[in-house]
Amino acid sequence: MTLSISNTDKSWIEVADNSDFSLQNLPFGIFRTQNLSPRVGVAIGDQIVDLQSLFVLGYLENLPFTKDDFATNYLNSMMLKGKAACRDLRLRVYKLLLSDSPDLQQNEHHCAQILVNQSDAIMQMPVKVGDYTDFYSSREHATNVGIMFRDPENALLPNWLHIPVGYHGRASSIICSGTPIHRPKGQQRPNDSEPPVYGPSKLLDFELEMAFITFEGKPLGDSISTTEADDYIFGMCLFNDWSARDIQKWEYVPLGPFLGKNFASSISPWVITLDALEQFRIPGPVQEPKVLSYLEYEGDKHIDINLQVAIETDAGNETVISNSNYKHMYWNMNQQLAHHTVNGCDIHCGDMMASGTISGPVPESYGSMLELSWKGTKPLTLNDGSERKFLQDGDTVIMRGYCEKDGVRVGFGEVSTKILPAK
Amino acid sequence: MTLSISNTDKSWIEVADNSDFSLQNLPFGIFRTQNLSPRVGVAIGDQIVDLQSLFVLGYLENLPFTKDDFATNYLNSMMLKGKAACRDLRLRVYKLLLSDSPDLQQNEHHCAQILVNQSDAIMQMPVKVGDYTDFYSSREHATNVGIMFRDPENALLPNWLHIPVGYHGRASSIICSGTPIHRPKGQQRPNDSEPPVYGPSKLLDFELEMAFITFEGKPLGDSISTTEADDYIFGMCLFNDWSARDIQKWEYVPLGPFLGKNFASSISPWVITLDALEQFRIPGPVQEPKVLSYLEYEGDKHIDINLQVAIETDAGNETVISNSNYKHMYWNMNQQLAHHTVNGCDIHCGDMMASGTISGPVPESYGSMLELSWKGTKPLTLNDGSERKFLQDGDTVIMRGYCEKDGVRVGFGEVSTKILPAK
Repeated sequence: MTLSISNTDKSWIEVADNSDFSLQNLPFGIFRTQNLSPRVGVAIGDQIVDLQSLFVLGYLENLPFTKDDFATNYLNSMMLKGKAACRDLRLRVYKLLLSDSPDLQQNEHHCAQILVNQSDAIMQMPVKVGDYTDFYSSREHATNVGIMFRDPENALLPNWLHIPVGYHGRASSIICSGTPIHRPKGQQRPNDSEPPVYGPSKLLDFELEMAFITFEGKPLGDSISTTEADDYIFGMCLFNDWSARDIQKWEYVPLGPFLGKNFASSISPWVITLDALEQFRIPGPVQEPKVLSYLEYEGDKHIDINLQVAIETDAGNETVISNSNYKHMYWNMNQQLAHHTVNGCDIHCGDMMASGTISGPVPESYGSMLELSWKGTKPLTLNDGSERKFLQDGDTVIMRGYCEKDGVRVGFGEVSTKILPAK
Repeated sequence: MTLSISNTDKSWIEVADNSDFSLQNLPFGIFRTQNLSPRVGVAIGDQIVDLQSLFVLGYLENLPFTKDDFATNYLNSMMLKGKAACRDLRLRVYKLLLSDSPDLQQNEHHCAQILVNQSDAIMQMPVKVGDYTDFYSSREHATNVGIMFRDPENALLPNWLHIPVGYHGRASSIICSGTPIHRPKGQQRPNDSEPPVYGPSKLLDFELEMAFITFEGKPLGDSISTTEADDYIFGMCLFNDWSARDIQKWEYVPLGPFLGKNFASSISPWVITLDALEQFRIPGPVQEPKVLSYLEYEGDKHIDINLQVAIETDAGNETVISNSNYKHMYWNMNQQLAHHTVNGCDIHCGDMMASGTISGPVPESYGSMLELSWKGTKPLTLNDGSERKFLQDGDTVIMRGYCEKDGVRVGFGEVSTKILPAK
């Protein structure tokens, strides 16, 4: 079942051609303004539809929501009503915004209450994240890392083509775009013949990822199949998996990344629904060797999402340093979710699962400084002439993403995070 | 600061000599009965003090709590009031239960409302776990694993003596004692020369651990020192870190354990406060090489806690298979918490941090079947004559723990979990 949203429909709210937030998108987020307490909003063009006011004014009648679902700091309460309810809600907003829909359009007084300029709004974390999982599902990224740190002839580890490898990350330190981070401090061992040292990370990096957010799952002990997976995914956002390579390198054997990652992860504030992304589905790569039966899937489950990473220097000079695409994933979300639950692990409303670094086949599409500068051996030159092997204090890392097809653009906005010096 | 609780004090409620729940313990938990909705309780002897009723009847006046803090499914709301408030609360209960305290003791009507037999109560998860971290802090365990799977001559990895190694685990699948688990299914590769297979784990194991539960921490970007750590720890419980060795072995390189662990972890229902454990503090091992300054600590920060693991067969025949002690930890909780936050990672009320498998120096004190049966090469013989290399369906794993000194016993009760066949 898909929404009956047409690509030729227009809204009475002006939407610029290059806007990420077309009538066909309608993503959900949490915003506040100087005068408005935190609440659920839907983005359209450069405006936000205030769902709390929409509810109070009676436009959301006969839907299974209460005011508390919208007058809240997180989307979780709304999402707990389930996929069908959230789909109906988005469709209701869609209908109100259609160019030939008079109800809201012609009520100037209501419009003044319901529409908020995005420039007046402060976006917050959209969801209260329960558990956070990070996958490692880009073959190009895993191969690059294998070549750099292990054996170029056997870059992929033996399990990689059989398992959507993943690990648990820190949920508490996931922050929203716009929140700066401090360079992390920690233990490193730059010289293998000397003892480890303590200090600010010298090899601070980003990882270009996307994350999906789940609805409430099944009880502990049950599994979600690749066929069922779509029903448990609410939507997606951009995800910057900050990484301190020096801390990570010294700590990660044998139990995986810990302090090299858990100081912060940044996400974009708007959650793009899976429904809005359906028309951008494409086939995935042929998986050889054949995967085990619980990882088999039917239909097009990959998505064509253009991704971009830029560094903005402290002086405000921006350089695009990578152009990648979510379609480069080897393992798709359906396989990730089926694998995650095959042992009975329970997932819940608001869990977040990130893709792992999304690197494409050419160097310009690599998704981390580690790969772009090839372990620091090939510094990048920015537009202001300065060089980067890894990230500097004062740098802002900006990630953007959008789908485009048949004249319709469905975008993710951006996740933008400035690096402050170590505390 | 410690509570002014004397070891010679007695309660007017009868407490058997071998009871874990002496007047000097007074742990917190969440219970319900056939007639009572879930609420906060304090254990004493074979009774529970119902804090919701205690509040309603006016015994908790002039403390910073509301009824909602006790009429709840989790201790989190109470814990959010902070360490000083929780300490005062425990002291208030202590005073009410003292043998020479008449107020509650002589009010038969109130006693009937406030005291509940433990045998009539169903214990629930005590806290809503935010993030869960598992450490790897027993030198004997890390050494045993290193000998079995890596190099016997260099059993400890290079970072082990410098870092309290840890990783993030799954919070959602932490369950309370009494809840059975199903044998997990998943991908394994029993034969390296053949493709991986899918099916129920054949090498299901427990790990004897203890966990501590935190109060609300500092904002993202700040650190908690070893000196400050005690102020952020509410209490401790027993922790069984279920492990599927075959799934774990095939998946864990390079990003650590995932599906081999996240199908379930079991905890004991009563949270023993750090205050109750203070008098059982002992010095830790000499740490050589010297740790980095942020890991240095002052005073006795290890704790002498006797630990025991038993297997009860489906027919009800119990065999104690391990006797260990929490004092065998190389890294203490203060070091673990300081390390966890040294990079600015934020911790919150209700986070859970487990110790890692607690193995002692002799084989009878090893904390997992993997070590007790030495990778399956030395099967254990149970009291009924049956043998175990790993765990069988129908087995119940029971862990118990207690401190004892100067005639005072402060115990943890038990975490008991039955293994059901794979679904």
